[in-house]
Amino acid sequence: MKATAIANANIALIKYWGKRNKDLILPYNSSISMTCDGLWTKTTVEFGDYLEDTIVINDEELKKDEKDVQGHIERIRRMAGITKKAKVISESNFPVASGLASSASGLAALTLATTTAAEMNLDKKQLSILARHGSGSASRSIEGGFVEWLKGEKEDGSDSYARQITPKEHWPDFRMIACIVSEAKKTTSSRAGMAQTVATSPYYEGWLKSIDQDLLHMRDGIMKKDFTIVGSTAEHNALKMHATMTTTKPAIIYWQPATVEIMHAVMHWREQGLESYFTMDAGPQVKILCLEKDEKKILKNLSELDGLKKTIICRPGDAAQLTDKHLF
Amino acid sequence: MKATAIANANIALIKYWGKRNKDLILPYNSSISMTCDGLWTKTTVEFGDYLEDTIVINDEELKKDEKDVQGHIERIRRMAGITKKAKVISESNFPVASGLASSASGLAALTLATTTAAEMNLDKKQLSILARHGSGSASRSIEGGFVEWLKGEKEDGSDSYARQITPKEHWPDFRMIACIVSEAKKTTSSRAGMAQTVATSPYYEGWLKSIDQDLLHMRDGIMKKDFTIVGSTAEHNALKMHATMTTTKPAIIYWQPATVEIMHAVMHWREQGLESYFTMDAGPQVKILCLEKDEKKILKNLSELDGLKKTIICRPGDAAQLTDKHLF
Repeated sequence: MKATAIANANIALIKYWGKRNKDLILPYNSSISMTCDGLWTKTTVEFGDYLEDTIVINDEELKKDEKDVQGHIERIRRMAGITKKAKVISESNFPVASGLASSASGLAALTLATTTAAEMNLDKKQLSILARHGSGSASRSIEGGFVEWLKGEKEDGSDSYARQITPKEHWPDFRMIACIVSEAKKTTSSRAGMAQTVATSPYYEGWLKSIDQDLLHMRDGIMKKDFTIVGSTAEHNALKMHATMTTTKPAIIYWQPATVEIMHAVMHWREQGLESYFTMDAGPQVKILCLEKDEKKILKNLSELDGLKKTIICRPGDAAQLTDKHLF
Repeated sequence: MKATAIANANIALIKYWGKRNKDLILPYNSSISMTCDGLWTKTTVEFGDYLEDTIVINDEELKKDEKDVQGHIERIRRMAGITKKAKVISESNFPVASGLASSASGLAALTLATTTAAEMNLDKKQLSILARHGSGSASRSIEGGFVEWLKGEKEDGSDSYARQITPKEHWPDFRMIACIVSEAKKTTSSRAGMAQTVATSPYYEGWLKSIDQDLLHMRDGIMKKDFTIVGSTAEHNALKMHATMTTTKPAIIYWQPATVEIMHAVMHWREQGLESYFTMDAGPQVKILCLEKDEKKILKNLSELDGLKKTIICRPGDAAQLTDKHLF
């Protein structure tokens, strides 16, 4: 009753923003992402005769009041009908809770490792639905390549899961350069941010009204490998998400000076013919979208900016998978 | 046939954003401003037997293709039924076209000076309507203190003018600290920015739907001298305006790194009990709202920030007025 899984983070090209059901984590809108090969979480779960659950994330023992992970293990234990306590060790290769989708890779790896250790043998749709209960965006990290999380219509959430649009081999020269401008833990979680947006932003209605067009463009752009469509739609969609947040009460402003510096730089490069686009999640980091042919030039340009701490380059990555190299 | 007028810029607390009629400059929404005693334009107009109009703004002769000022003089000349050419000299004590409402003070002073030189003797409502034709926000700089520009309903614009909410004596300890972070001429004019917003932002509908509540709060806050209501409503309204811009196609992002630095600083001071709020117009400058009692502390805090070039402090200011000290 021991398993280790590795799952990649994903970067949303069309953002998940707002829940229609907070308990089941059902979104108001479908979202589209790229699974990122460079940003992973590896998690080992073992059920055994322990006195209590032990959860160690990046070498730190989880506090009892951090309920997401604990609750997810409990959920799976209940489904599997087992009572043994779990020992969980998890490692990510990137900063946690700073807008780099750590909960997506973390909860996806946890879902696969825990259900496997519990000998449940779920298919991808079932895994995606289960991962969604832990963290909405984790539903997308179960699959590889370019992925769409269907919002679903049913009240029980059984049709709200992620499925692949195209595998990573479809577009191997697509790149996402994560620009880390701050490693501080963010002050407002995505979860709190989107709840506040739905409750108080006068622009959330406009977000929902315009999302289907974004989704249509994005699917189309990915299928055709039309980088201009994919990049410009992703950038517009990210700006729309951040715009809803700045108009909540109180305002949530995730952008830092360096965030804005990089955004302007990308727009400037584009005017000069170096095609790249930006997207940002609920945090200050900027993710630059480009093609492999322009990667080196963009990294060189980035090195001349003030506020950038480090970069991580991602290609379209693999689905979550089991590994036989355990962490303990 | 010579007159000199001085008019103050105004800072919108509820922004004018979007035209329902571009020729007559009629807005979709009413707006509220404070006339600023520290940011003025002084303009002398003389009609005489010149061969052509001469327009000098801040010691630079206006190019023929800068049509706003030229067109405004032509408009007034037609109304007055005179054919003589004009000599115009205008000076502002702050950078032009960088988001510090130079067109408001400029066109208000020009309206008063030109109509006086043309011996038209208009009342304030007529002056405000006429100034509006030159630049929408100029309609507000005709009046002093706290001012509302009524959007009006009529197609001919005869009910779209600014009137005073309270004179400057009502709230003498109200302060606006203009923080100049860039003196570069902005790349997208307010005029182009708002046209693009109305045409392409999915959030413009939300802007219009939520504006009446902002106006109500603002009038109420000003009448009661409730700084918390005025400040928080102004900040929310400014963020809403900028949010519409970032979601146009293509995006208009007026914020610079230093803009965001100051915004976060203000929010941080507020958390610590130093009550202040920010607002930004169509440019990178931040205007901090505070009360006189906190002015020194805020200036000291500002001096520790990186991106700030200079500050200008304004109190509620006077209406546009004639002066007998001519510029030439």
